[in-house]
Amino acid sequence: MTTPGKIMLVGIGPGHVEHMTQRAREAIAEADTIIGYVTYIRLVADLIEGKEVVKKSMTEELDRAIEALARAREGKKVALISSGDAGVYGMAGPTYEVLFEAGWTPGFDIEVEIVPGASALNTCAALVGAPLTHDFCAISLSDLLTPWPVIARRLDAVAASDFVVALYNPKSGRRTQQIVEARRLFLRYRRPDTPVAIVKSAYRPKQRIEMTTLEAMCEADIGMLSTVLIGNSATFIRDGLMVTPRGYANKYDVTNGDTRDGEQAGRSLSTGLAGWRDTIRASGHSAAQIAAQYQLPVDYIEAVLAQTEAEAV
Amino acid sequence: MTTPGKIMLVGIGPGHVEHMTQRAREAIAEADTIIGYVTYIRLVADLIEGKEVVKKSMTEELDRAIEALARAREGKKVALISSGDAGVYGMAGPTYEVLFEAGWTPGFDIEVEIVPGASALNTCAALVGAPLTHDFCAISLSDLLTPWPVIARRLDAVAASDFVVALYNPKSGRRTQQIVEARRLFLRYRRPDTPVAIVKSAYRPKQRIEMTTLEAMCEADIGMLSTVLIGNSATFIRDGLMVTPRGYANKYDVTNGDTRDGEQAGRSLSTGLAGWRDTIRASGHSAAQIAAQYQLPVDYIEAVLAQTEAEAV
Repeated sequence: MTTPGKIMLVGIGPGHVEHMTQRAREAIAEADTIIGYVTYIRLVADLIEGKEVVKKSMTEELDRAIEALARAREGKKVALISSGDAGVYGMAGPTYEVLFEAGWTPGFDIEVEIVPGASALNTCAALVGAPLTHDFCAISLSDLLTPWPVIARRLDAVAASDFVVALYNPKSGRRTQQIVEARRLFLRYRRPDTPVAIVKSAYRPKQRIEMTTLEAMCEADIGMLSTVLIGNSATFIRDGLMVTPRGYANKYDVTNGDTRDGEQAGRSLSTGLAGWRDTIRASGHSAAQIAAQYQLPVDYIEAVLAQTEAEAV
Repeated sequence: MTTPGKIMLVGIGPGHVEHMTQRAREAIAEADTIIGYVTYIRLVADLIEGKEVVKKSMTEELDRAIEALARAREGKKVALISSGDAGVYGMAGPTYEVLFEAGWTPGFDIEVEIVPGASALNTCAALVGAPLTHDFCAISLSDLLTPWPVIARRLDAVAASDFVVALYNPKSGRRTQQIVEARRLFLRYRRPDTPVAIVKSAYRPKQRIEMTTLEAMCEADIGMLSTVLIGNSATFIRDGLMVTPRGYANKYDVTNGDTRDGEQAGRSLSTGLAGWRDTIRASGHSAAQIAAQYQLPVDYIEAVLAQTEAEAV
């Protein structure tokens, strides 16, 4: 009887060994077989001497998962290497899909471990300043597996609601127009001078950072290894750093940490949920007027207005 | 003359030493002074023996940054500890705000280094399966620094456009209704049985994972140390694992990796940007009809239809 095998989905972070977690190193050390996209294998070359290495090209993600399962069922420990985080546009999803298709059940078959890592949005943000201090989202511009109208609708929604946005897979040799369309959709809501950072090969020898604007971003050098960070309406660039304020200035005096008049440390803002509910109730405006003012659905405003004090503790 | 000091903003990941990066460990080792929220300090207790430790409570983030700057200007190396990633709702933003306020200029004053780490959305995702395989966003439900209508508008936008959503700061002793409001907004667009995972204290001794649904999520145990992951329309739970398909099944046969009829490996989907543009052009429908069908702005559809073939390479 063979020992049960294991698949380890290892996120190696940006690609420099310093930014790999201890568990990622251990998982690679523990593995008999290493499977991954050839670029990522190269990034961990010093850790994999003497191991079986299966290199696969970019579009063979399902093949990688199928191969990993076959080896693991032979009793091998297999490390599937992803750059960044294995769960973010990485191998975790396709692997579980392949496992379920093959009748895998946790606890009665090979083991699966996901080793989290810093994703491109974390590492690119660390290099450019503090762009992700407020709500953000990640959108892949690749239409290889997602219909364009789905992507366009997401771009439109988050552009309108002032998220900081990280664009993954912004452009490739064949896909050059998706970033142009993204710019077009963002410019409907955001100022042309909205800060944009383009980070290529973060923490790798060919790292390149370009600070630009929404208006000019399509003129920048953007490729397969780039992440594009688009700021929200409060994001600024100063001394080459891109920073999104968290909102402290609304409540605290940044010079000495004192609380501003009308606000309490550790409490919701006066415009927080409870305060806002009181304000719209006292306004005397109709639900439709309030909905238009705050760009929220009318039936949501009606529900908030209809709440009794007892519900809204 | 003193040596110039340094502030290192260190993301320690979920809190278990195994999931800390090598650079995070080194930065803590290098530091003379460690500043952080008391819970995070406790997580790295074994690394900080013999160092000056400044513990601060949760609401004193500006104080922490002000204190770090003062020490660094005395020539000290200061590590500001954040759980997760220092850039994601972490200390990076407030620190740069304090630095700029104090007249700091990079290259002519103390040095600043941000050490990226896996954020709660990465680590929680790794524990529950593969929920972030497709576009996702992070929204903080805390209205301590953000007005509620801004938060509500973001929840509404991403619920409507089918993002997987990670809710940070979902609930606290005083803030109990924000999660109820989030559920209300999501139920306007998503099925009541949409999978939701609630992860508390990921990778820490008190780790707790609860799989539930959008309908039932407010009955779950949610607190200050919880992250709430809400699936998109394709997310499923199977054998206790939460998985968002990447879209492979649209294009490939998951059992053997073969490409489906009408699609090409490594190429945009037939419903990708170019294919979709051809389809809407050939439809004979008006821009208004197409906009309604795809829930996109009319003027965006008009711009796409107006593109010449030369522009749309």
